[in-house]
Amino acid sequence: MENNDKVTSNRVFEGDYVIIALDRKRKWVVRIEKGKELHTHKGVIDLGDIIGLEFGSRIKSSGGTIFYVFRHSLSEAIYKFKRATQIVYPKDYGLILMFGEVVPGSRVIEVGVGSGALTAVITTYVGSFGRVYGYEINEKNLRIAEKNLEKLGVLNVVELKLKDAREGFDEKNVDTVIVDMGDPWEVIPKVYDVLVGGGNIVVFVPTFNQIERVVQSLEENNFGFIRAVECLLRDIEVKRGAIRPSMRMIGHTGFIIHAKKLAKY
Amino acid sequence: MENNDKVTSNRVFEGDYVIIALDRKRKWVVRIEKGKELHTHKGVIDLGDIIGLEFGSRIKSSGGTIFYVFRHSLSEAIYKFKRATQIVYPKDYGLILMFGEVVPGSRVIEVGVGSGALTAVITTYVGSFGRVYGYEINEKNLRIAEKNLEKLGVLNVVELKLKDAREGFDEKNVDTVIVDMGDPWEVIPKVYDVLVGGGNIVVFVPTFNQIERVVQSLEENNFGFIRAVECLLRDIEVKRGAIRPSMRMIGHTGFIIHAKKLAKY
Amino acid sequence: MENNDKVTSNRVFEGDYVIIALDRKRKWVVRIEKGKELHTHKGVIDLGDIIGLEFGSRIKSSGGTIFYVFRHSLSEAIYKFKRATQIVYPKDYGLILMFGEVVPGSRVIEVGVGSGALTAVITTYVGSFGRVYGYEINEKNLRIAEKNLEKLGVLNVVELKLKDAREGFDEKNVDTVIVDMGDPWEVIPKVYDVLVGGGNIVVFVPTFNQIERVVQSLEENNFGFIRAVECLLRDIEVKRGAIRPSMRMIGHTGFIIHAKKLAKY
Amino acid sequence: MENNDKVTSNRVFEGDYVIIALDRKRKWVVRIEKGKELHTHKGVIDLGDIIGLEFGSRIKSSGGTIFYVFRHSLSEAIYKFKRATQIVYPKDYGLILMFGEVVPGSRVIEVGVGSGALTAVITTYVGSFGRVYGYEINEKNLRIAEKNLEKLGVLNVVELKLKDAREGFDEKNVDTVIVDMGDPWEVIPKVYDVLVGGGNIVVFVPTFNQIERVVQSLEENNFGFIRAVECLLRDIEVKRGAIRPSMRMIGHTGFIIHAKKLAKY
Repeated sequence: MENNDKVTSNRVFEGDYVIIALDRKRKWVVRIEKGKELHTHKGVIDLGDIIGLEFGSRIKSSGGTIFYVFRHSLSEAIYKFKRATQIVYPKDYGLILMFGEVVPGSRVIEVGVGSGALTAVITTYVGSFGRVYGYEINEKNLRIAEKNLEKLGVLNVVELKLKDAREGFDEKNVDTVIVDMGDPWEVIPKVYDVLVGGGNIVVFVPTFNQIERVVQSLEENNFGFIRAVECLLRDIEVKRGAIRPSMRMIGHTGFIIHAKKLAKY
Repeated sequence: MENNDKVTSNRVFEGDYVIIALDRKRKWVVRIEKGKELHTHKGVIDLGDIIGLEFGSRIKSSGGTIFYVFRHSLSEAIYKFKRATQIVYPKDYGLILMFGEVVPGSRVIEVGVGSGALTAVITTYVGSFGRVYGYEINEKNLRIAEKNLEKLGVLNVVELKLKDAREGFDEKNVDTVIVDMGDPWEVIPKVYDVLVGGGNIVVFVPTFNQIERVVQSLEENNFGFIRAVECLLRDIEVKRGAIRPSMRMIGHTGFIIHAKKLAKY
Repeated sequence: MENNDKVTSNRVFEGDYVIIALDRKRKWVVRIEKGKELHTHKGVIDLGDIIGLEFGSRIKSSGGTIFYVFRHSLSEAIYKFKRATQIVYPKDYGLILMFGEVVPGSRVIEVGVGSGALTAVITTYVGSFGRVYGYEINEKNLRIAEKNLEKLGVLNVVELKLKDAREGFDEKNVDTVIVDMGDPWEVIPKVYDVLVGGGNIVVFVPTFNQIERVVQSLEENNFGFIRAVECLLRDIEVKRGAIRPSMRMIGHTGFIIHAKKLAKY
Repeated sequence: MENNDKVTSNRVFEGDYVIIALDRKRKWVVRIEKGKELHTHKGVIDLGDIIGLEFGSRIKSSGGTIFYVFRHSLSEAIYKFKRATQIVYPKDYGLILMFGEVVPGSRVIEVGVGSGALTAVITTYVGSFGRVYGYEINEKNLRIAEKNLEKLGVLNVVELKLKDAREGFDEKNVDTVIVDMGDPWEVIPKVYDVLVGGGNIVVFVPTFNQIERVVQSLEENNFGFIRAVECLLRDIEVKRGAIRPSMRMIGHTGFIIHAKKLAKY
């Protein structure tokens, strides 16, 4: 109960992970403890001073610079995840959720956990009634993902497995399988077996050649209703009197392919 | 319990809403009843025949055309929502969730419910521990939204209000406010009051002139960490041997503006 | 000489082709003759009345609607070209010129003339000291192109050939070859032979599979400095107080591939 | 005559400007002289050795690296222009030509010459029968532009003027005016006066606020048929077996606004 109070409280308690932010790019995830300090290039912040503050508060560093304290959230956590591998970008997460029909209570397999950023998103949105099974063949990645997810407090909903999905899955009748690996076609026949009827597969690949092979494999393995998209995110600079799209833009991350498991003849 | 069994079952029960699909564009939401029929331009389907089928199954119409049966999901539901107004597009939903830090358990206000499509998304993702408060000034819209959300079975998590948000909100300390109305700046001072410290506002507007006024109002009302983006979704045609971006594309829906409530000096 | 005067005059002479425009989309190319009429859904215009008017002038139809008279230009002509085939889009013309280093005086081969729209652009920009050789295997297309280019008055600079470029070219040492056909790799070895050292090939293809085969063929045939791009054009609606990108947008026309002929070892 | 021979020759003569290229990004513009050397991080090239070589030839540096010799062209020249200011991007040049209806023989005014890159394009395409008048208020810019255009050998077609276009133009009845300055609305009434009837104005601006003011000014000054666009260029990486859009992309340069001079009532 006490724990629950903390969660819903809007003040900082000792032991909380919080975000200290200078601007949208320069942020720190810190655990609040009396006597600890955060050292930045804009001066030192005494973390003990933050206890009891409301989120959104200003704090001044020893150098006189203003920082803000924010709740440690999913978005902030992902942004700060220690990264082992190229990750799917935030702009793609929402589409993957939508296409995959991942909702609270869903049982989802993720093939290719990487540093766990997408895992964190899925885990958050399936909620405490859902379940995520994360397959990863690189042990170093898996450890990084585990640490990242632990910090976010969602390890209880996810099972991380150091296992090659190409050899098959341990689960049955999952709602959705999300695949983020270099040769997704190698795992698609197994994905068919592990999905419920009408279940969703979502594949993330960077190249056209991969789209081609994924689509061919989906068609050969009784998947249908195939759709592939890409998502371009553009920042708009909001300087007053000079609103314009930003010159900096990520031109490509990857393509998202969605299909549904159909009954065999 | 029995109800819960049905939810997790992968077979069609009498009384279920299901999707009958011909392809990605031509789909029907139907309630399964013995003796009822679905009439399409490709022949008639006897809905009673569907009872007991697994999702993903094929069914043949009287005209010999193959249709598929899918679970009635959030994505499908939205696609079929009766529309009163221009709606935010699915490509934008995920970004709104991410920017708004809307997660299971969140308490969210939506200003401008429209036909309830975005409401359905938010409601789904805040889950049964969360709460959504939907403000709408047009009674006709509100009735359509209510019906749409009822069909999806999420009315219990949302409170729809026929009320002008410009006159203030009834709630306190909500985590996120999502604004989809023509003159969002009129409601921003009230949004400040209703948010927790560090809470999130997400505004959806179609024009640059609106971006400018929203940003100005956010700055004047102690919001900070402002970011504006737009999202372009491109379909890739996956015909084997001829993979290419689709010629058809929606060039613009709107801009998503995000900011955080900061403490007053 | 008299003819030359007419060209530089800013008034309409009898016999001129001019543009009658209602707005950016609704335009007519007409030849001005006394006693002839233009019939539109907004009323009739007596073409004899236009003689002697300055370009940019208003004319009122019998229905009282205002139309404008403009010079018959390259851009307008292309817009109105009778089309036999899918054409390269205006947004791509400029890039093709730039990549192909097509300038006044250039000698250019075009493979796949189609309806002659791109031919018209190239022909215009190589000018009277340049030369364009247009290869086309479909006779119907070639006749349409011929008519289109004649109307524009540039037939003297172009040689249209009903000939399969895969069997080789009649020319030697051309500066640039522009290829717009379904299987460009079939013609690339011949393109190598017909180009000057360091000369430019520009290929326009709609699919990724074609990019792959073109690039492979270019590499195998001693072309280098390969670059492929695509160009997205977005209209901005300029209604005052409501500036926004247009919802309508062409999502894809094709990819432009450029390479340079390198010496053989 | 002899000079003309050199221009059409495909071999390098002493005194020629040529391009020495390592790849698409690393290029040098050099004047070929016996006894001169080009020093690169990949070794030294003896420029005298290049005399008599065909364009497209390989040359080996002292370090054993292969370079290529190409003709010094418009595209290459612009790429290497000494830059005083932010320039319009090559992707936009073609559109400006098309919208402006700039063709061989056109008489064009450019307001805001900057480093002369767009001037070089216009000058090249109006050809020897056309004429370009370049207005620039910054003397340093004008000197840089002059040098850039001289190197390209097109100074004879252009008149560069150190003059504020807001005070009016010296010319009469020009076909097209291209405006690339911060406050284009200040010059639009003068542009109206200097254009022929039905003549074209093309304005390049980076922000939405500028679009709004430009459009308002155009409407107030009897321009019509207004259109505004932006152009996004995406590079495709053509590594065989891994074709994909490039991650690097310029998200925005500016908007291109086109309008036509209409007769006053």
